[in-house]
Amino acid sequence: MRALVYRGPFDVSVDNVEDPRIEHPNDVIVKITSSAICGSDLHMYEGRTAAEPGIVFGHENLGTVTETGSGVTSLRAGDRVVMPFNVACGFCKNCLAGNTGFCLTVNPGFAGGAYGYVAMGPYKGGQAEYLRVPYADFNCLKLPPGREHEEDFVLLADIFPTGYHGCELAEVSPGESVAVFGAGPVGLMAAYSAQIRGASKVFVVDRVPERLQKARDIGAIPIDFTQADPAEQVRDQTGGEGADKGVDAVGYQAQAHTGQAEEPATVLNALVETVRATGKVGVPGLYVPNDPGGVNEAAKHGLLLLAIGKLFEKGLGFGTGQANVKHYNRQLRDLIVEGRAKPSFVVSHRLPLDQAPQAYDKFDKRIEGYTKVVLQPAA
Amino acid sequence: MRALVYRGPFDVSVDNVEDPRIEHPNDVIVKITSSAICGSDLHMYEGRTAAEPGIVFGHENLGTVTETGSGVTSLRAGDRVVMPFNVACGFCKNCLAGNTGFCLTVNPGFAGGAYGYVAMGPYKGGQAEYLRVPYADFNCLKLPPGREHEEDFVLLADIFPTGYHGCELAEVSPGESVAVFGAGPVGLMAAYSAQIRGASKVFVVDRVPERLQKARDIGAIPIDFTQADPAEQVRDQTGGEGADKGVDAVGYQAQAHTGQAEEPATVLNALVETVRATGKVGVPGLYVPNDPGGVNEAAKHGLLLLAIGKLFEKGLGFGTGQANVKHYNRQLRDLIVEGRAKPSFVVSHRLPLDQAPQAYDKFDKRIEGYTKVVLQPAA
Amino acid sequence: MRALVYRGPFDVSVDNVEDPRIEHPNDVIVKITSSAICGSDLHMYEGRTAAEPGIVFGHENLGTVTETGSGVTSLRAGDRVVMPFNVACGFCKNCLAGNTGFCLTVNPGFAGGAYGYVAMGPYKGGQAEYLRVPYADFNCLKLPPGREHEEDFVLLADIFPTGYHGCELAEVSPGESVAVFGAGPVGLMAAYSAQIRGASKVFVVDRVPERLQKARDIGAIPIDFTQADPAEQVRDQTGGEGADKGVDAVGYQAQAHTGQAEEPATVLNALVETVRATGKVGVPGLYVPNDPGGVNEAAKHGLLLLAIGKLFEKGLGFGTGQANVKHYNRQLRDLIVEGRAKPSFVVSHRLPLDQAPQAYDKFDKRIEGYTKVVLQPAA
Amino acid sequence: MRALVYRGPFDVSVDNVEDPRIEHPNDVIVKITSSAICGSDLHMYEGRTAAEPGIVFGHENLGTVTETGSGVTSLRAGDRVVMPFNVACGFCKNCLAGNTGFCLTVNPGFAGGAYGYVAMGPYKGGQAEYLRVPYADFNCLKLPPGREHEEDFVLLADIFPTGYHGCELAEVSPGESVAVFGAGPVGLMAAYSAQIRGASKVFVVDRVPERLQKARDIGAIPIDFTQADPAEQVRDQTGGEGADKGVDAVGYQAQAHTGQAEEPATVLNALVETVRATGKVGVPGLYVPNDPGGVNEAAKHGLLLLAIGKLFEKGLGFGTGQANVKHYNRQLRDLIVEGRAKPSFVVSHRLPLDQAPQAYDKFDKRIEGYTKVVLQPAA
Repeated sequence: MRALVYRGPFDVSVDNVEDPRIEHPNDVIVKITSSAICGSDLHMYEGRTAAEPGIVFGHENLGTVTETGSGVTSLRAGDRVVMPFNVACGFCKNCLAGNTGFCLTVNPGFAGGAYGYVAMGPYKGGQAEYLRVPYADFNCLKLPPGREHEEDFVLLADIFPTGYHGCELAEVSPGESVAVFGAGPVGLMAAYSAQIRGASKVFVVDRVPERLQKARDIGAIPIDFTQADPAEQVRDQTGGEGADKGVDAVGYQAQAHTGQAEEPATVLNALVETVRATGKVGVPGLYVPNDPGGVNEAAKHGLLLLAIGKLFEKGLGFGTGQANVKHYNRQLRDLIVEGRAKPSFVVSHRLPLDQAPQAYDKFDKRIEGYTKVVLQPAA
Repeated sequence: MRALVYRGPFDVSVDNVEDPRIEHPNDVIVKITSSAICGSDLHMYEGRTAAEPGIVFGHENLGTVTETGSGVTSLRAGDRVVMPFNVACGFCKNCLAGNTGFCLTVNPGFAGGAYGYVAMGPYKGGQAEYLRVPYADFNCLKLPPGREHEEDFVLLADIFPTGYHGCELAEVSPGESVAVFGAGPVGLMAAYSAQIRGASKVFVVDRVPERLQKARDIGAIPIDFTQADPAEQVRDQTGGEGADKGVDAVGYQAQAHTGQAEEPATVLNALVETVRATGKVGVPGLYVPNDPGGVNEAAKHGLLLLAIGKLFEKGLGFGTGQANVKHYNRQLRDLIVEGRAKPSFVVSHRLPLDQAPQAYDKFDKRIEGYTKVVLQPAA
Repeated sequence: MRALVYRGPFDVSVDNVEDPRIEHPNDVIVKITSSAICGSDLHMYEGRTAAEPGIVFGHENLGTVTETGSGVTSLRAGDRVVMPFNVACGFCKNCLAGNTGFCLTVNPGFAGGAYGYVAMGPYKGGQAEYLRVPYADFNCLKLPPGREHEEDFVLLADIFPTGYHGCELAEVSPGESVAVFGAGPVGLMAAYSAQIRGASKVFVVDRVPERLQKARDIGAIPIDFTQADPAEQVRDQTGGEGADKGVDAVGYQAQAHTGQAEEPATVLNALVETVRATGKVGVPGLYVPNDPGGVNEAAKHGLLLLAIGKLFEKGLGFGTGQANVKHYNRQLRDLIVEGRAKPSFVVSHRLPLDQAPQAYDKFDKRIEGYTKVVLQPAA
Repeated sequence: MRALVYRGPFDVSVDNVEDPRIEHPNDVIVKITSSAICGSDLHMYEGRTAAEPGIVFGHENLGTVTETGSGVTSLRAGDRVVMPFNVACGFCKNCLAGNTGFCLTVNPGFAGGAYGYVAMGPYKGGQAEYLRVPYADFNCLKLPPGREHEEDFVLLADIFPTGYHGCELAEVSPGESVAVFGAGPVGLMAAYSAQIRGASKVFVVDRVPERLQKARDIGAIPIDFTQADPAEQVRDQTGGEGADKGVDAVGYQAQAHTGQAEEPATVLNALVETVRATGKVGVPGLYVPNDPGGVNEAAKHGLLLLAIGKLFEKGLGFGTGQANVKHYNRQLRDLIVEGRAKPSFVVSHRLPLDQAPQAYDKFDKRIEGYTKVVLQPAA
């Protein structure tokens, strides 16, 4: 089959690779109709990880079941399914607690697995014609047949639940004000999720006018952090209080208020200032324990200067970590089915698999409006 | 009346001061029978705060109502009461949410007030014969009459609820394993609270043999961090998993594994290592945004190097801040009344008020077994 | 002053009564600008309670503070405020737990107090020019000055929080389906609240076409129970599953599917059928322990035949009781202020106080579209 | 193999039956070392269900894996395991929500399955030498090897989690008072669980002196309902308040205060009286929608006269349904392993499989101290 293969930094190609096959009774094979490119794929693409050549990328996958293992009971060939980016077993201590992003079974020695990602286990990615899905009864979420909502549903694999996870970690509840840092796809999904959860006021902090405009389009209040201290701007619009809750949808590649330099803790510390005393902050944005490109020795080891004194004085709580997609995807699917959510507004491009290399190049350069690309291998 | 007055670094004396009086219809005056000295009093005593001479110390207060304001409805002269160290109004946004440690009313411009503490509002302390208690219906917790359980009940003002708060922030639930860092009074109360909440295994990390022995006495597992990496020791005793939950009962004056040097983030970072992926950490231990004695420029401003990369990778959650004593003191009182909790095992000395200066001296030097002193002004 | 006074069954008049005055340091006097008539006022009006002549009705009150007691700290003359229908102290065991509808202080011997209601304490109602509000710091919710959102804000006193309470008791969360029984004002508020909380699908069950139309207008799915078994209709529209959650916004005066006869448990039992296994049901609709008009001896004592066997087999949970308005009114106010909620769509009439008697008559007869009347004593 | 087979009312025998075999890749076969007789087995034994002759009883099973299907990944032959009485798939909507007692997969057309029980699916019971366990990775809980704690661990299959479930439904938290109705094995486990969760005061209501003595032995307060109204007794011992929480561990075969007549709602209604306003009640005790032996026509259909008026006035919440054992068994196991729980105090007899018929007879007659029998087929 054809698949997008990593060849080295800034080098991916669509090649012929071996077809996936049933390796275990609980596997299914899925023909991929949509597979999105994620911002985190760029970490590998840019060579800022330990990814070796040969990896097939793609952890945001939707398609049709073509073959089922002998142990699979709830799925049939022809079923339309979307898979969480996390691979999970469904029966370990963490999966049982709903923490399917930290499965102890699928990637021995580590808590958590994923498709097509360095160090996340032996699972091939779905930017390809076919994908093997292990523990399929657990990992597949069934969708209504047909092609309806295809671009909404594919976002159930990662960024819609990831944005929602930010709100869950921050315990966003009706009537609250929320400050989301970052207006990329995940930040927009977090803002959108905050509104679904009944927030009274959602701020989205960024500096890119197009992104801020998208935030405004969905009814959020854009905050341009280059104009003034974002904490001050939020306080000004909350009667001096600050936001009830906050979400960090940026992560460790955050940039300073001025200039392009990375300042990896700047968003976390801005949230400490922005969120009111007793508030909670959700951090779905990625921080890593080893960053070869870190701005200094500490940062290379994931150690950042955090305003702990202030954080404690305000009695803030922080929840972190990658989303447990399985924990949210059913209810978010139902919102899409019923027309109450339409997250596909963040999708900028849908392309055949063959155009994936160019899409990576443009997405990485953030040019021509490439913000969220959905590949369509089976189209 | 007689009261313990701060005169300057390492200088306190028992002096005559003006009697407190009803200043507002919701005030009561309480004759103090017990007032404990808190480790945080030593911050002022040592001159490591902005405390000015003249402050009357004492925020762990128990006594008998002698006079009530015209607006007070639930209290009568003669009622025996214990007061949370936090002064709170009961009707602001934070109090209504149960966050009485962050009251917006009692200390304008800041979230939170306390008795006898620098920058925590105009409230005199209770290491004195009498104390004025504002918003008395809200701030007084009634106790059974008499003198029974006096030393247990006085701990309801601060350290028992503070230790319990650590477990609440960490969401300790039955059957879980918990690692508490620090075997001082708050750490022991956290360990004790973890057991009340049904933890299956409680580790207490310290290096002082007497403290570790106290942990053992209450059924916890002592971990001497000078013998080996505490995270490793805990993993060894949890089948390699790490503790389900953690509590930082040390705060910013943490000391390095070896030697006496302060290493203010060492406990937080050890907890990141010790607690298993998806775990939660409660931080009742104090961190401050301004520390004149900080080990470096960043620390002086409350900025510490935290292992955020690892923390995120493990999907940990952190809850912080001083205890909302009011949120817990009723249920903890009932445990004492019914004989299910007896926290006074941490009390080392009970002394008349006149001996307070010597007690401060010895407690500060950690000599002669001074670990928790209860002053008895009305005895 | 002028006030609406109960004279006997079906007899109310606007009379001169004594002005309220500050009776306690924590009281304020409020000049009433809006006071709504509640369906529960009709219980008294119809003589189906023990209400004695002389009661001033009105527990849904909004107005302007004119005078404050000496113990009040957060309010000033001129402040615009809305009061929960429940009178609460703010410091008893129930208030501290957020259960302000069950205050142990304000109505000795009973859990809960209210304005202008039989057996709910000595508090006069607000269908009058002025109202005395006890424990004013706790009971008054401040509103933006002016007259904006007047008809939305007055609903914060009761029916908006009461509808929301139904969803809270049922633990309605994003993506779920919810079946609300009753499309009166409370039922519509429950349906509206379910949508605010992110429900994917909200069913509203009633038989009155105008009410069902209102449900449709806010995006809910109307279910006419005279057309077919409502449980079956809901199952048909949820893939055979039944609703995830349910709300009983009808109470004990429920009527049988056919005809006008009261069948007091019919809604509860219909919910047992309608809600899927493991679901939860919120019951803000009123049930009473003594009903002189009960359909049989058991019903007169509040004993109803409930399908407990089925309920248990399905593992359902039931939450009941009048709303703890204080627990919700701040966040719901903020939704109104930010334009995210506009509950006043249920208001049918706004009238001067003098027209209250006619309004009662028409509302009781359900004629001329009288569904929710707001009196404007100070207009 | 040998197995206990139901032959008809009051007639069971140990017979040769076919050995179980792997029927599906996710099955395992378990050699049974302990299988307890449950009070609910007696419903079938007494002929009060639709159970047909030929059923192998036994849903409280512990043993050693002897064979694993090709899809099983976490289990090996030789593993010691205990199984929840509920059979569950681990991936349906209910299982994912933790409601494994209401699995939608294993017993099509019904929510929930079990071993060896009428209408609970095609799963044979474990009062036999061997048992087939489906979805084994999900349904088996691993235990430490050996024979230690055998009688504690076997209670993890049902009654310890079921008692705990009562407390979970009632949301029992530290410091609260709890009234448990019923001092049979489940009631004692509920009381024991309440103490593990930190209750300050646990009442156990029954009338059998031996049972009440057992309650006293574990530190609970026995309430003999034949001496005086139990609600009154509990109020007397809670300062007039009533218990904070309640648990119904009796179910529909409850008997009247006086005499032997069944009065199926008597416990539920007594709980409405016993529990304080705003309290919560957990109902693990069984109620059924069809009871051929019901005391009247309504009861035969599971309709009981419940004091709904009072229940609503007090704002009580009710949670019901059979325990989701899987949701609790890991943490309860860890309490046993660490010596913090020793539930086997309820076990009265351990017997070889051959003596099962006599055990049923005596247990059913409640003679010779037969209260909880553990059969040991492989001993």
